[in-house]
This record gives sequence, structure tokens and C-alpha cells, in this order.
Amino acid sequence: MSERPFDDVAAGERFLTRGVTLSESAIIDFAMVYDSQPFHIDIEAARQSHYGGFIAGGFQTLAPSFRMVLETGIFRAAGMGSPGFDELRRLEPVRPGDALHVEPEIVETAPSRSKPERGILCVACRVGNRRDENVPALAVMRLLKRRARGMSEARFRHRGSPP
Amino acid sequence: MSERPFDDVAAGERFLTRGVTLSESAIIDFAMVYDSQPFHIDIEAARQSHYGGFIAGGFQTLAPSFRMVLETGIFRAAGMGSPGFDELRRLEPVRPGDALHVEPEIVETAPSRSKPERGILCVACRVGNRRDENVPALAVMRLLKRRARGMSEARFRHRGSPP
Repeated sequence: MSERPFDDVAAGERFLTRGVTLSESAIIDFAMVYDSQPFHIDIEAARQSHYGGFIAGGFQTLAPSFRMVLETGIFRAAGMGSPGFDELRRLEPVRPGDALHVEPEIVETAPSRSKPERGILCVACRVGNRRDENVPALAVMRLLKRRARGMSEARFRHRGSPP
Repeated sequence: MSERPFDDVAAGERFLTRGVTLSESAIIDFAMVYDSQPFHIDIEAARQSHYGGFIAGGFQTLAPSFRMVLETGIFRAAGMGSPGFDELRRLEPVRPGDALHVEPEIVETAPSRSKPERGILCVACRVGNRRDENVPALAVMRLLKRRARGMSEARFRHRGSPP
């Protein structure tokens, strides 16, 4: 599935990433740089907060989850980045020691109206923990290159790969 | 504005953060951990991509932008985290050397229906660069503590602050 252009991807396809565990020290380290809310940094303040203990910050959950999605190779050669995403919901807090995995599902595909060489995927990404609770869930848009008219898959793969 | 509970925040309030510059090495370092798409890591591949050069990853733009928002103190004592966000759009690419600032605006406030001690803000966050282009824009939801009935502002400030 790794080198496919937009034209070869269909709604309904589902994937599963490998896991990533967020340690307590990783949570604190990330928070010290990007998100110093007390429930990410100070165990006493975290215990007294409505979360009852440390939780991982939102971007700290999303960034490694996104890495896991990239590592599936879904978007490898044909990926052109993302114009945005929608409907991010943080359903259950992510706690130290939680192992996260992502279940991406392609829910919609649409050729670009203005740029014939690309298409847009809508990918619903459910992030789950080891208790099989949903933690964040969001709908990510992805740009993917299209195969030029008459271009073979082998030729696309060659042109689409990084130099 | 730093210690205010939900009850003292009104729709229409606007803020402005200080700036943060994303260097080329910061873009590469973050991408090596979280987002190894070629246009974040490899200058030659980035030049040949449709972006024409390095761009910062989405989470690498959002995480420091969010830090700048936290540093305004809008959510300091009363902040209870975020249940999610919507409508993230990456409007213009973020390039090495760009200085980003955020213009948060409170667009809606609603008391929680199920939990009387908290309220929800919807905060529209426009991220701008030094060319005054809009780069990401998104709508962030924030949970904020409410002042208990009859509690003075001074008393709230004391109870609301981290221990």
C-alpha cells in the first residue's frame, strides 16, 4: 500500500498502526517546552486537578500518533501534506504508561477541483489505548498525488519517490 | 485577565501573543522525531516538492503557538484543559525563519450542562506570520472553572491557583 497514488486509494480502507507508550518523563519533558499547564508537569497539582493525576498534553498525544500513521506508509511516495483537520475530540485522558495505537480509516476521496494532479483524502483517525478506550479521535485531510493519465504504476512509483 | 474564572470571560474579547521564530534546525529536529515527510527534513526533496522548500510540520507549528497562547495567562488559574478543537486549516506554509504570533478571540461561552462547576469557551485562534499572512487557523475549545456561588474574586484566585 506504500507507494499508491490517489487514484488507487478507496474509501472504506482501514489500517492499524503499531503502538507508542508515553512515559511520565516524556510527558513532563514535552510539557516543559510546549504546554506548562500544571496537570502535565507537577504531580501534586495534577492529583488535585479534576484529572486526578498526570495526563499527556493534546499535541503530545497527536504528534507521536501521527508518526505511527506515517510509518504505515499509506502516504509515503504520493503524500503532499495536509490542508487541515476537523472534529478533534479528546475523549479519555492519556495517562503515563498508556500505549497508544491509531486506527486510520479512509472515509472519503475527492479529486481536487482546481489542481488536476492531486486528490484529497479524508481519513478518520481513532486513537486507542490499551484499555481499548477511545482517546483522541479526529478527521484528517491529506493531499495525495494523482497518477498522470497513461502513467504506469511502476513509472509513478519511480517519479513519486523522494530523490 | 490571568486569574479569571469562566464567569468573568465574555465573547468578543481578543488577545495577542508574543512571537516565536521557527528556525530551520528546529524544523528538522522536530521532524526527525515526529514527522519524517521529506519536505520537513531533506532540503533537496523539499525544493523538488510542490512547497518549493522546507516547511514546518503541522504539530510543530501548533505546539509552540499554543505555548504562546498559554503565556498570555488567559487560562492560567481557571484552566481545566481542552476537550478538542475544530476546523484547523493550514492556509499558508510556515517557512524557516518565520515569526509566528497568535490572535486568540473568544467567540462563544457556554456553561456546562452536566457539570455546574465549569464552563466551555470557544476560542478562534488565527496564527499569523510576519508577512501578515494567515498560517493555521483553528477553533479551540477550553474548559474553565466557574466561580462558586457567593465566592469572591479574591477567594477564587486563591483556590484556583496551583498549590
